[in-house]
Amino acid sequence: MRDTETTQFVNSEAKVSPLTSLEPAPSPDPDRVIPNLVRIASEAGFEQTASKLRDLREWLGEDMRTLENEIMGKQDLHENIASRASEHLLHTAGKRIRPLCVILSARLGERQADQNVIDLAVAAEMVHAATLLHDDVLDEGQTRRGVDTARVVFGNSASILGGDHLLVCALQRVERGGSPQLLGSLLETISAMVHAEARQLEQRGNFEPSSETYDSVVRGKTAQLFNWSMRAGATLGGLSQKQTEALALFGHNLGMAFQLVDDTLDLAYDTATMGKDSLRDLKEGKMTWPLIIACQKDPMLTKLLRASLHNPSYMDDEERITNLRARILATDCVEVTRQRARDYAHSAHQILSDFPETPARTALATLLDGAVARVS
Amino acid sequence: MRDTETTQFVNSEAKVSPLTSLEPAPSPDPDRVIPNLVRIASEAGFEQTASKLRDLREWLGEDMRTLENEIMGKQDLHENIASRASEHLLHTAGKRIRPLCVILSARLGERQADQNVIDLAVAAEMVHAATLLHDDVLDEGQTRRGVDTARVVFGNSASILGGDHLLVCALQRVERGGSPQLLGSLLETISAMVHAEARQLEQRGNFEPSSETYDSVVRGKTAQLFNWSMRAGATLGGLSQKQTEALALFGHNLGMAFQLVDDTLDLAYDTATMGKDSLRDLKEGKMTWPLIIACQKDPMLTKLLRASLHNPSYMDDEERITNLRARILATDCVEVTRQRARDYAHSAHQILSDFPETPARTALATLLDGAVARVS
Repeated sequence: MRDTETTQFVNSEAKVSPLTSLEPAPSPDPDRVIPNLVRIASEAGFEQTASKLRDLREWLGEDMRTLENEIMGKQDLHENIASRASEHLLHTAGKRIRPLCVILSARLGERQADQNVIDLAVAAEMVHAATLLHDDVLDEGQTRRGVDTARVVFGNSASILGGDHLLVCALQRVERGGSPQLLGSLLETISAMVHAEARQLEQRGNFEPSSETYDSVVRGKTAQLFNWSMRAGATLGGLSQKQTEALALFGHNLGMAFQLVDDTLDLAYDTATMGKDSLRDLKEGKMTWPLIIACQKDPMLTKLLRASLHNPSYMDDEERITNLRARILATDCVEVTRQRARDYAHSAHQILSDFPETPARTALATLLDGAVARVS
Repeated sequence: MRDTETTQFVNSEAKVSPLTSLEPAPSPDPDRVIPNLVRIASEAGFEQTASKLRDLREWLGEDMRTLENEIMGKQDLHENIASRASEHLLHTAGKRIRPLCVILSARLGERQADQNVIDLAVAAEMVHAATLLHDDVLDEGQTRRGVDTARVVFGNSASILGGDHLLVCALQRVERGGSPQLLGSLLETISAMVHAEARQLEQRGNFEPSSETYDSVVRGKTAQLFNWSMRAGATLGGLSQKQTEALALFGHNLGMAFQLVDDTLDLAYDTATMGKDSLRDLKEGKMTWPLIIACQKDPMLTKLLRASLHNPSYMDDEERITNLRARILATDCVEVTRQRARDYAHSAHQILSDFPETPARTALATLLDGAVARVS
């Protein structure tokens, strides 16, 4: 996800003493719980979509407030460096797209966002947050969602344990909901996420322009949790097997589109604007879809990317980075990638068109449009 | 557990390229699957116990061979740096005490070690291994069970993902066994392990001689998985609620005794014999039971320990370390700790005495004696 900011190496020491950094959890602000969707749509220039969402605010606002209350609340009775590290991440306002998928998918089946639905929605966000806490250690990430990462504040060890903690909390929420098949599919999903991350780690720095590897990694790393989120809501919503599979596929398509757009954002800003935050994926040796397209169209780029990554001074030279970025952008890879994202979104819209036109369907369609058109 | 060897700082780079270090998994050696118990008893001078166990070899040998086959086999279809890191650890011969608890507890209920029992036994070992993979990153451990840690061979990131992988594999095995209450209690157990590790991390370097903190950490970190292992076997063995709770308490007592003995081993060898492997817990700032006793009896030690830990050159000075160790040992803290371990073992033996005298009961009693008397 496009949340971390830099890849500069820092040591594993926490910035502040973990015991003094404890602050009371902020109470959920009603003004911040719904506007994420609105903001995404508005920033993307989708004023009509943003306006529709504002109309839905009253209807969805209650669900989102309940969700935020659950996420912001204490996850359990433990109060230590692991729970603080996880709360540090959970309490910064994310887009909450995965929990929205659970809630809206359940509402497609005319199920209210009761405790069971909220439990699964929170679980989806927790699994996402758990992988971020581990990924930040893997990637030595320094900032996320505009603030220092948990590993910078509390140390790498706390970030690892915080991730473990959230994984267990997520599974416990699904387990207490008493849906064995959803617990089984969530375990499969987490497994897919771990192995996709491992494959990406193995491939790091290779810049092999393989679309098969890319699709397999993104399916596991991103799309499968969206798939599960839609499936979870649909199951609780009592939808038919066929409808549930259709919505799971909607989730897959949304997830693929989301990641493709995410990839383009890495190239969206130059070093002059973003400083060291620019070209993070590239500096981490990750092969994104725009880079695959660029390497296919400009075959010498693969060698150049590999060579530049193995030359530490290269990545610190602003002019060279600017030139490298210009060469990549010259292949039109960003537009090709955005088009691929739109193709996934189109397939997802078609799936929705088989469902009755309800506020939940409109909200899902808006979520999809926002995810594809987003610029942050 | 007494498996890691040094605390020297190493960077997070893997020693060898992960892609070239792949070796075929060794096939289980029938000569190594049962003798762990025998060896433990024999090394501890329990020749009678060792002899009893040799008699049981035929009976238990089949179970252990099945167990090792499952542990040594591919855990799933994924073949990447995460699965290789986890196999690297699982394939080195551990004591397999937790799986033995599952199998023997089931056999107390006259249940054979069928696939379901073996699944839970493997799950117990996997959860243990998962925490070791994460702990080694937390502790910067270099060797374990006599070989380089997975994080040294494959890198910190692979060790983190390998641990995540094993946690999921363990939960999937329990989930497919269809025992919801065992899945719930395993999640609780993992949660307790994570939070105990977090508390230990927070306390690191404080050398606060608090028996409450120690007991709470060891209960979560070590005893609860032994508790779960006994509970899991007893549940599958169809034992009564009362018997199951009694065996879970047996597991708790065994786990506490096991950790207390583990603590004494840290002080058992001097730097002349063990070099940098000596006094690992102390160098990591972990408050073990012998250190608590030593600090209670020699109050100036707390200050000395804190000061020495904050002075990096201190821990590298062999003579100072030898003097520090001598001062600790002079408090008789090792014998006091061994006595506490024997007290836990005594309580555990009393629990067993309520069960009919079967080979399974004898094996559990021997396991207990071996765990308390062990010298490695």
